[in-house]
Amino acid sequence: MTSIDLNADLGEGFGRWRLTDDEQLLSVVTSANVACGFHAGDAATMRRVCEQAAERGVRIGAQVSYRDLAGFGRRAMDVPSDELSAEVAYQIGALTVFARAAGADVAYVKPHGALYNRVVRDEEQAAAVVEGVLLAGAALPVLGLPGSRLLDLAGGAGLPIVTEAFADRAYTAEGTLVPRGREGAVLTGPEAVVERAVGLAVSGVVASHCGRDIAVRARSLCLHGDTPGAVDLARRVRAGLESSGVRVEAFV
Amino acid sequence: MTSIDLNADLGEGFGRWRLTDDEQLLSVVTSANVACGFHAGDAATMRRVCEQAAERGVRIGAQVSYRDLAGFGRRAMDVPSDELSAEVAYQIGALTVFARAAGADVAYVKPHGALYNRVVRDEEQAAAVVEGVLLAGAALPVLGLPGSRLLDLAGGAGLPIVTEAFADRAYTAEGTLVPRGREGAVLTGPEAVVERAVGLAVSGVVASHCGRDIAVRARSLCLHGDTPGAVDLARRVRAGLESSGVRVEAFV
Amino acid sequence: MTSIDLNADLGEGFGRWRLTDDEQLLSVVTSANVACGFHAGDAATMRRVCEQAAERGVRIGAQVSYRDLAGFGRRAMDVPSDELSAEVAYQIGALTVFARAAGADVAYVKPHGALYNRVVRDEEQAAAVVEGVLLAGAALPVLGLPGSRLLDLAGGAGLPIVTEAFADRAYTAEGTLVPRGREGAVLTGPEAVVERAVGLAVSGVVASHCGRDIAVRARSLCLHGDTPGAVDLARRVRAGLESSGVRVEAFV
Amino acid sequence: MTSIDLNADLGEGFGRWRLTDDEQLLSVVTSANVACGFHAGDAATMRRVCEQAAERGVRIGAQVSYRDLAGFGRRAMDVPSDELSAEVAYQIGALTVFARAAGADVAYVKPHGALYNRVVRDEEQAAAVVEGVLLAGAALPVLGLPGSRLLDLAGGAGLPIVTEAFADRAYTAEGTLVPRGREGAVLTGPEAVVERAVGLAVSGVVASHCGRDIAVRARSLCLHGDTPGAVDLARRVRAGLESSGVRVEAFV
Repeated sequence: MTSIDLNADLGEGFGRWRLTDDEQLLSVVTSANVACGFHAGDAATMRRVCEQAAERGVRIGAQVSYRDLAGFGRRAMDVPSDELSAEVAYQIGALTVFARAAGADVAYVKPHGALYNRVVRDEEQAAAVVEGVLLAGAALPVLGLPGSRLLDLAGGAGLPIVTEAFADRAYTAEGTLVPRGREGAVLTGPEAVVERAVGLAVSGVVASHCGRDIAVRARSLCLHGDTPGAVDLARRVRAGLESSGVRVEAFV
Repeated sequence: MTSIDLNADLGEGFGRWRLTDDEQLLSVVTSANVACGFHAGDAATMRRVCEQAAERGVRIGAQVSYRDLAGFGRRAMDVPSDELSAEVAYQIGALTVFARAAGADVAYVKPHGALYNRVVRDEEQAAAVVEGVLLAGAALPVLGLPGSRLLDLAGGAGLPIVTEAFADRAYTAEGTLVPRGREGAVLTGPEAVVERAVGLAVSGVVASHCGRDIAVRARSLCLHGDTPGAVDLARRVRAGLESSGVRVEAFV
Repeated sequence: MTSIDLNADLGEGFGRWRLTDDEQLLSVVTSANVACGFHAGDAATMRRVCEQAAERGVRIGAQVSYRDLAGFGRRAMDVPSDELSAEVAYQIGALTVFARAAGADVAYVKPHGALYNRVVRDEEQAAAVVEGVLLAGAALPVLGLPGSRLLDLAGGAGLPIVTEAFADRAYTAEGTLVPRGREGAVLTGPEAVVERAVGLAVSGVVASHCGRDIAVRARSLCLHGDTPGAVDLARRVRAGLESSGVRVEAFV
Repeated sequence: MTSIDLNADLGEGFGRWRLTDDEQLLSVVTSANVACGFHAGDAATMRRVCEQAAERGVRIGAQVSYRDLAGFGRRAMDVPSDELSAEVAYQIGALTVFARAAGADVAYVKPHGALYNRVVRDEEQAAAVVEGVLLAGAALPVLGLPGSRLLDLAGGAGLPIVTEAFADRAYTAEGTLVPRGREGAVLTGPEAVVERAVGLAVSGVVASHCGRDIAVRARSLCLHGDTPGAVDLARRVRAGLESSGVRVEAFV
């Protein structure tokens, strides 16, 4: 029986501000990418989300970011390697306390926003993220884009790697994401998203933007939680997967 | 043979800014109160100071603070308990990563600045700090002022407590510190400071501000590292202790 | 004909986060307390809100705060006078740029959150806020609680003062607000709020918490914009005032 | 008689931290690039430096930066145009308050660190900085590198432009700076720096890295204030200029 992991960004508020409906999303996903304070996620929110995730048996991941609250971690930054690796380790360490206090542990690391995009190709920053994960000491799996420098370097350093795909994004014939902003980059219509999710999970094949079938290997699907209707769409994706015989469960 | 611990605040720079001469101080003290990013201490600095401390066998403590870079943690804040306890745990967790990467571990917790002063009497915040230490999970010793609410509550919660005294501060007849700003609050002249340090370590007796001898029990002496001449004074204190037959070593 | 000003806090998002429905509230209020970056309000948001306010002829005020994004300015802080006055001036200056670029100007100053509450009684901080307003140079009116130290000192320094009242809060027999958290502190039910607003505007008399009528003189009513239903309630208050013959307009 | 402006970065501390010896530098330079809070420069420091500059008749400039305290504004950031222009205006506005309170005014704008380097070539960010200056309303002169996109766009928008050169840096045959890190990029030895400064001021000719004379037109020389010996070197440069018959004065 085929299985797939569902991950989403959680705890992305800060102080008085909320963004994601953490409780609802935690009833859908199997892996929670918890913000660690650098782009979002104050300490009290981190604690709460870890407790809620642990109660529901949802896996906790460290969603590490550039230090950029004002830009929500979405602005690429030329952070020197030694600073970036230390900042990644700092965030993992902070989250670890709350995961353990909730009876769980940090189970993986996923870069956020501009850092996620940067380490697809940037050798130096990808290496710094890997060094940050190694610094944190637990040989945590790294979640990222198939073929990214991050996953290549993480694998080379002996870290488990977990590939992910996006059910709501169009793919090019080369298997990369059609950049946001281009027409058709984001799939609209819940049916199309559910169909794409099932295709990714069952056959690992999606129709690319230009019509050709391409192979996309992913052990996890990323769902977005910060848009109106996000929770409802996430539920439909999960239901669609289950009714197609896919077991939804955290990656091993 | 009498022994005493020497502690000092270290790693109190941030990014481009430096405050303390960490390397020199690490050759004098036996316990390093490492800033954890809330009043000072970026991630790269935390990593570096932990490595240097571990190399020299100096014990690493988490110097936890209010979140206040602009005020260097010296402005009292009415932080709600659940936020404060989570913030304390966050800082301990972040430092733990660097201490362990250096082959050591976080060995104790000491509040910084305005938080240190506040938890002498403030029941709610003292309880929140204790809860934060408990959240962090390792039953870490808490370093603070004898008779403070913090130490009382920490002891009541089963945490080891470590009392400290100040070799460069005047004491009242009640055994509390003469507030900064009052005449004679801070001892000047290295000889007076060394003499005070030896008195504290050997007999636990100091002459109070008004001349009466009072008992001050302390397992650690706090040295200040952020003033000109601080390193030299710290060295003289250590030499004075050793030549008086006091063994300078970390508290057990 | 009686007239009253309606003010509300606006622009209280930060980066990716939104809190208030600025556009809708700007169609109701006559004075906009614009967050200036210390508790909320990034620069781009400040610019946008100033443009929208100027378009609608809504007056722009500087909503100055402690530097505390994580606590949304709701945690009292012991900020030394020279820092606080400089921080107040800094915020006013920053907002002035956007108000002027929109063809308007900063027309008044109102402290936010914990600073608002603190300067009701705290002589030193009230004086620091007044000094900050004076530093900013334009002799701006100060909006605050009748009888507060802030308004007393502002008036004494030659600044225009504007008193405000709260349509959704219960008053004690002494004319102060019943503290949040006590039973009945916040009026629920739109009718009660509208009735209270009309009473404040028309007669300056409200029934206190214990039933006695008390005089509350206010040239402005504060509406809250950060709760569900806030915009709808604000509209009802304004409609209720107008249908009672009260002219809703900015204070002179 | 030839004249030249001397500028230096000032007020680059933050809270407890100091970097530049502001008082000493203000006795040497004619233009003070005052940090505005985004890479350094808390409000109280800004106020103090403005007062000191005004007392000495030193011109006050807004040293605008990316929002990056942790990186001291030295990490390039992909800030969207609308955010960057608003952030530039915000900083100018904040500084204006303190300049005016001191009886002076903000007289020019100079980008700091990574932003300075970025707008040499980056069309979009250069345009955003210019828009930020225009937003601030006073048609302020922009200080920057000759031939930079920033100065081209500023000039095109009708803003006065002021070129600057560096007395302690090596130039390529094309008139650009030899990148830091390359051998010989930074001139050592006070005599070489003074000679270079005089050459720049008197003839506008410097010997390039490879020996060929090149023309470098600059109305201002930038002196660095954040290194040991910086003040002494600045004094020698000024003395050298004056003894060579160059009048040291702010650009008009």
